[in-house]
Amino acid sequence: MSNEDMFKAGYKLGILGGGQLARMLTLAAHKMGFETHIYSESTDDPAALVTAHHHRNKMNDENALRQFLGEMDVVTFESEFLDAEMLARANKGKNRLFPTPELMGVLQDRKTQKQLFEDHSLPTAPWLNIENPQQLNQVLSELEVPMVLKKRRFGYDGYGTFVIRDQKAANEMLVRLNASPELQNEKFIAEQFIPFQRELACIFARNRQGDVTHYPLVESLQKNSRCFWTMGPIQNKKFSILSKKIKKFLNKIDYVGVMGIEFFETKKGLFINEIAPRVHNSGHYTMDAFEVDQFALHLKAVIGASVEIPDSPHGGFAMVNLLGENENATPQWKVSEDVVVHWYGKKQNRVGRKMGHLNSVGSHPKKALKKALKAREKVQL
Amino acid sequence: MSNEDMFKAGYKLGILGGGQLARMLTLAAHKMGFETHIYSESTDDPAALVTAHHHRNKMNDENALRQFLGEMDVVTFESEFLDAEMLARANKGKNRLFPTPELMGVLQDRKTQKQLFEDHSLPTAPWLNIENPQQLNQVLSELEVPMVLKKRRFGYDGYGTFVIRDQKAANEMLVRLNASPELQNEKFIAEQFIPFQRELACIFARNRQGDVTHYPLVESLQKNSRCFWTMGPIQNKKFSILSKKIKKFLNKIDYVGVMGIEFFETKKGLFINEIAPRVHNSGHYTMDAFEVDQFALHLKAVIGASVEIPDSPHGGFAMVNLLGENENATPQWKVSEDVVVHWYGKKQNRVGRKMGHLNSVGSHPKKALKKALKAREKVQL
Repeated sequence: MSNEDMFKAGYKLGILGGGQLARMLTLAAHKMGFETHIYSESTDDPAALVTAHHHRNKMNDENALRQFLGEMDVVTFESEFLDAEMLARANKGKNRLFPTPELMGVLQDRKTQKQLFEDHSLPTAPWLNIENPQQLNQVLSELEVPMVLKKRRFGYDGYGTFVIRDQKAANEMLVRLNASPELQNEKFIAEQFIPFQRELACIFARNRQGDVTHYPLVESLQKNSRCFWTMGPIQNKKFSILSKKIKKFLNKIDYVGVMGIEFFETKKGLFINEIAPRVHNSGHYTMDAFEVDQFALHLKAVIGASVEIPDSPHGGFAMVNLLGENENATPQWKVSEDVVVHWYGKKQNRVGRKMGHLNSVGSHPKKALKKALKAREKVQL
Repeated sequence: MSNEDMFKAGYKLGILGGGQLARMLTLAAHKMGFETHIYSESTDDPAALVTAHHHRNKMNDENALRQFLGEMDVVTFESEFLDAEMLARANKGKNRLFPTPELMGVLQDRKTQKQLFEDHSLPTAPWLNIENPQQLNQVLSELEVPMVLKKRRFGYDGYGTFVIRDQKAANEMLVRLNASPELQNEKFIAEQFIPFQRELACIFARNRQGDVTHYPLVESLQKNSRCFWTMGPIQNKKFSILSKKIKKFLNKIDYVGVMGIEFFETKKGLFINEIAPRVHNSGHYTMDAFEVDQFALHLKAVIGASVEIPDSPHGGFAMVNLLGENENATPQWKVSEDVVVHWYGKKQNRVGRKMGHLNSVGSHPKKALKKALKAREKVQL
């Protein structure tokens, strides 16, 4: 930001990555007056299609990254799975890339993410780090089931997460492991399986001045380890204390931007499942339920504007993901009067791929969800 | 639309023109799943900046237009001041360009627009067509003042509109006219000046199936013949009868798309001032006040989807235009938590140029307007 909190027209925003999160950030940025530049690997990327400023480069090209960062006023990213050390070098310590590459490095690794939770007394499932294949063998043979194995890096949407429900499953995993040199070289953490009642999520934001806000808590339902729908607002008595802890945590780590946080709701209270240092699928409902959505809010946070969130005028809201089902078909749908399709413009339909989502609002969360699920039936994927 | 009312992902939308209306249509289209192509003259055009698909051509290049139209599934425009006959030829009668070039031709000319109002018994100010410079002289000398002279074509935002308030002004206009061969060659209509209480406006929409809807009536305040703000909803007892007439009119002319209609509110009732066969400045408030805004609604109309408009959850809403003031300065503003800046990305600031607008909502129209006007003070243009 320039002096006196003023935002200048044409402020250059760089976004690393070209997927749907980058696309929705770009659409928000266009409205707000940024000149928005996408750095990604393909001209067909969803975000590359919605701006005149596409920089086609490899994500691990340090020179290209350095040049891109140097040309921008502020830069953000859509995925925490970049080479954080390379990014930090390319950024040369400039106060320009948010969240910082240092935090990205800590949060992209399940082990250091878990340690961070512990360091800040944030409730999370008991876990242990697995140092080597021998230890992995031991964990699978001896640890109490059910448990969850998680790859330390690059796991998302269920990729790299293995829920071991019983001893039989553990034995099968052992066989699979011993047959795969690739899996043996992988680094894992093991987590105690938390028997949750519901999965919840919440989008937090902190700006450069240190103001922290959050949208309401929402419930999210996973199908095959992928988010199928979210609805909100959800009430949970334990959340107000936990949200204060999270606020403290965000201040302590000097976080800047939007953060998606996933929770397990249990009889013993709320546990943090995972956090993502970016805009998040569980916050897509904000596009139609709130005057300021998570994408605009993230941009406000990184330029140091107010992150206050005006109340939603709706009693309930919901989002249903549109996941690809048939790679040989062009998706089609009935355009509804009140359920909003957000399409990501991906050129290739693939089974399980996030192709778009549906948003709806209503007088109550369940009414909104019902409406969205009904509209989902009219979508051929 | 394909069979069974289904919209296919990647449906190709062409937009003729690259200004802010095309830009906002494009942003709506990206969300909805169109592959959006802009046909305009400069790569710096506001809409050209927000898509990867820009076709840079002259607006009067018939071959380029024909090729562009041929490549699209559906085409629309942001200005009615194109060469309607050339467009009709380039379109070859295909059911693809909405509103149709034939209607564009009728509506781009004040004379034929006025005749259309009369043909459909729509209330409008008494007027007369001016056939030649002699008659223009006569009108200025003899017609009752105040009156309004309007260029038949290419008039917008006060350009080409001359309010002749008294006989002195008429004499001055006569002097100006006789000194300007250019003005003498111009074609005009003369209109009786309507002493209005307020100017009102309303966005109507009609889809390919013939369903007609409209947003609420709003008040608009003009400054120097340019819209300064709008606020709504506004109540007017005469509107329900007039809106039924307008609905009939839209059906009769088989109109497809959004239409902006401006009214004079007088003691004698509502008079139609002008209509624009496109999305309209007086409907920009819909972007933040309604779940479906005028840009999405226009696209729904042209593909034949439902044009039902879910009720606004807000008691009031307002829009304030951001008009350039200093061509040597980069505009800057305070990013507010609840008043939304929509910026058009124009490279050159110019006095009076529409650079963006502010939207706000509130419990009452006046509260929303007050909020927007206060935020306007924080914008340096």
